[in-house]
Amino acid sequence: MSDGSLVCTERTPRVVAARKLLRRTGRERAGRFLAEGAQAVGAALASATAPADGGVGRSRARVFEVFATELAAERNIGPLRVAAAAGIPVSMITERAAAALSETVTPQGLLAVCARIDVPLAEALAGAPRLVVVLVGAADPGNAGTVIRVADAAGADAVVLAGDSVDPHNGKCVRGSVGSVFHLPVAVERDVAEVLAGCRRAGVRLLAATADGEWDVFDPTASAALAQPCGWLFGSEAHGLAAEVAQAADARVRVPIYGRAESLNLATAATVCVYATARAQRAATI
Amino acid sequence: MSDGSLVCTERTPRVVAARKLLRRTGRERAGRFLAEGAQAVGAALASATAPADGGVGRSRARVFEVFATELAAERNIGPLRVAAAAGIPVSMITERAAAALSETVTPQGLLAVCARIDVPLAEALAGAPRLVVVLVGAADPGNAGTVIRVADAAGADAVVLAGDSVDPHNGKCVRGSVGSVFHLPVAVERDVAEVLAGCRRAGVRLLAATADGEWDVFDPTASAALAQPCGWLFGSEAHGLAAEVAQAADARVRVPIYGRAESLNLATAATVCVYATARAQRAATI
Repeated sequence: MSDGSLVCTERTPRVVAARKLLRRTGRERAGRFLAEGAQAVGAALASATAPADGGVGRSRARVFEVFATELAAERNIGPLRVAAAAGIPVSMITERAAAALSETVTPQGLLAVCARIDVPLAEALAGAPRLVVVLVGAADPGNAGTVIRVADAAGADAVVLAGDSVDPHNGKCVRGSVGSVFHLPVAVERDVAEVLAGCRRAGVRLLAATADGEWDVFDPTASAALAQPCGWLFGSEAHGLAAEVAQAADARVRVPIYGRAESLNLATAATVCVYATARAQRAATI
Repeated sequence: MSDGSLVCTERTPRVVAARKLLRRTGRERAGRFLAEGAQAVGAALASATAPADGGVGRSRARVFEVFATELAAERNIGPLRVAAAAGIPVSMITERAAAALSETVTPQGLLAVCARIDVPLAEALAGAPRLVVVLVGAADPGNAGTVIRVADAAGADAVVLAGDSVDPHNGKCVRGSVGSVFHLPVAVERDVAEVLAGCRRAGVRLLAATADGEWDVFDPTASAALAQPCGWLFGSEAHGLAAEVAQAADARVRVPIYGRAESLNLATAATVCVYATARAQRAATI
């Protein structure tokens, strides 16, 4: 591993090509993105090497190659063996190359070049979903990743990034999701009206999370509604949901504020709503 | 306002003194900290100028002075009038001075120099609290601020930063709390055993949030327990709660993971636990 000729630098063509994936245009052109760090790479490899009928809830990820520094390789022998066994090329890279491929202050030294994970809206909403999370105009990739992780944890069937939302393949989003972008179907659809129509065709009731919603998410009326298939609409951090989107939903639901805070942030409000739904749906089926 | 002699620069002594508050040692020496931005400064002024018997749930904040750039002053006439009416000095500062006092990429141009808001543990836990949030070894100031905001929103009686936790007066924590550091009592106590003893003396049952807890937070047994006064213990992002702290609690409680995510992050896990408690306590009193 100390032989320089075997180790890719930041100028090696495959590293130069991978580096273009740090930008949205580069990702869209290549149809690929970078997953960085042990958790994201592990989730990518687990998905890519899962049995075809593994019931993973979404189609398998595709991993084209893995990059690892010498230090990262020592720390991640398991994942690298999984990659090698599946015939996925593993390339050693220098620390400088790892830094060039990273958007973080402390590069992880382990990266996977993956095929885009987003699926068409109709595919994400196939199969009678019971819990769908829709982010409308989500601007912060870290928040979007956190919500994808919460949706996954709560057993959601799909996440949709609607309107002018961040790219789910953005490095901060992939990291914030801690592997969850590989766990459940994620669709990207700019046309919000089409997303609402798609959710209705899929049989979910649309609930808009708004600070002044007519339902308290913990009210018995809301709980009864949550036990049915639901699609939650969450707006942007800065502006919330546009009034016309909130009005287009079947109900507007607020998270109760019992103290003196004015509001919750996007990720924590979504956590209350999505977990309240998961709880209501499980209580109803017992 | 365009007369330079009336506008403080980054070299004006009061700005130089305020700048020292960006560091924990400076804050500890002065007993003061900086609140930045319209929401934090507004919350500081609202607390500082509240009637003594305003039932605000905590003692009043103290604001020594307010700094504003010309642009920020135009945008925040209301808060500046509140300050002036209360006899709090308002100083105009240059954009460079605002940048020197800010830890953010885009300085807000509005800052308040405040007296530390932390109170002794016994004071924070006075008055038969029903919901206490304890962060043990919270390392990330943004996460700590988010949890303080969630605790406030859920109507918690107090937040305790225990062990080797971040300073709640850290700029990122104050910003993440979006004013909530001024809304409920916050105590800082390094001695974790003393925090646990203090909570027990205050009559709250200690619940440790752990991934492998024996109770599911949504189980009926847990819900019955949550309806009683509770103190939640949350560990650090990286390591969770130390085993001896979790064992010292009255019960260990997990957030159910219905999907394929391995876990939730600190802020979202705390959101589920704290809101489940608020819900159980309100359902019990109806």
